[in-house]
Amino acid sequence: MEYFAPPLASLIEEFSKLPGIGRKTAQRLAFHVLNMDTKDVNQFINSIINAKKNIKYCSICSNLTEKDPCFICDSTRRDKTVICVVEDPRDVIALERTKEFNGLYHVLHGSISPMEGIGPEDIRIKELLQRLQVVDIKEVILATNPTIEGEATAMYISKLLKPLGIKTTRIAHGIPVGGDLEYADEVTISKALEGRREI
Amino acid sequence: MEYFAPPLASLIEEFSKLPGIGRKTAQRLAFHVLNMDTKDVNQFINSIINAKKNIKYCSICSNLTEKDPCFICDSTRRDKTVICVVEDPRDVIALERTKEFNGLYHVLHGSISPMEGIGPEDIRIKELLQRLQVVDIKEVILATNPTIEGEATAMYISKLLKPLGIKTTRIAHGIPVGGDLEYADEVTISKALEGRREI
Repeated sequence: MEYFAPPLASLIEEFSKLPGIGRKTAQRLAFHVLNMDTKDVNQFINSIINAKKNIKYCSICSNLTEKDPCFICDSTRRDKTVICVVEDPRDVIALERTKEFNGLYHVLHGSISPMEGIGPEDIRIKELLQRLQVVDIKEVILATNPTIEGEATAMYISKLLKPLGIKTTRIAHGIPVGGDLEYADEVTISKALEGRREI
Repeated sequence: MEYFAPPLASLIEEFSKLPGIGRKTAQRLAFHVLNMDTKDVNQFINSIINAKKNIKYCSICSNLTEKDPCFICDSTRRDKTVICVVEDPRDVIALERTKEFNGLYHVLHGSISPMEGIGPEDIRIKELLQRLQVVDIKEVILATNPTIEGEATAMYISKLLKPLGIKTTRIAHGIPVGGDLEYADEVTISKALEGRREI
């Protein structure tokens, strides 16, 4: 027996399709939307339509952007001889927040994962190689995640770049700042030992 | 400094206005929407528009419904002499799931809460009294939540109904089934003692 009126049931259904939204949360969100002012609902809908219509990939770095090229690739203040390769547009945000990196980015939109059937041709590695042919790059920093997939992707790219004679680096792995040795896993600790530096 | 492109930032902003959705979840949802097929996004948007347009209050019980009167008030199989008063449309769903109650409902859409400035005139008590004048009702079950606000609302309504000579009952409070005495709070335990019955 269906307790919810069909339009409400289908709204709950749509909300529960979103990642991390369970049945109960979907219900709460649907009821919230019903209680919202029509003005606010329209604003919500328009923001979806607007983002969907105006956000595209930067033709240089593949990051999400409103205008092409994106504001990072277009900036005159950035070092255009260094490219930091990341898996996801959110990683760009995370790196930008540090204010430590002043080069350009390249967003792969994924990582090599045979388990999920994602091969090198499914992520934007080809576009990276094309970039390297056009512009003179001094260093490529591989900042993919320290997961099996991220490591495999970094290894794969570094092997492609070796013949080109471009300096290729990998971000350091180790105990996170504020972290605790006691709770760190063995792989992280051995990476931290491996990457030790003289002080 | 704004790291996200404006249309994306505004979509994240809109998602984070929803209840229980923090900044990180809003980001994840916004990125998910950008990656969705245009077809699925349109379906999502249409379900919002459709629910907002077609879901209204039942003119009898104030429950959310597509057609007026709602299927419960309209049913010929229900006992129309008993009204169960609840705070929220979700409470109707919860009660319907038990399949134990065969009367009608009345949804107050809130509870009396002086702290939040919600008085008796802000919830649908007036509509309940109007119903009682029109139809012959044998019993009114007060099933507001066992919170301070819910109790106050039940007390308030019971005082209004006393002069009308209608039997007014309150749902039982006690240890929930499967619950543990050890972890129950004092108020629940005293309510459970107070409501004890001979077996």
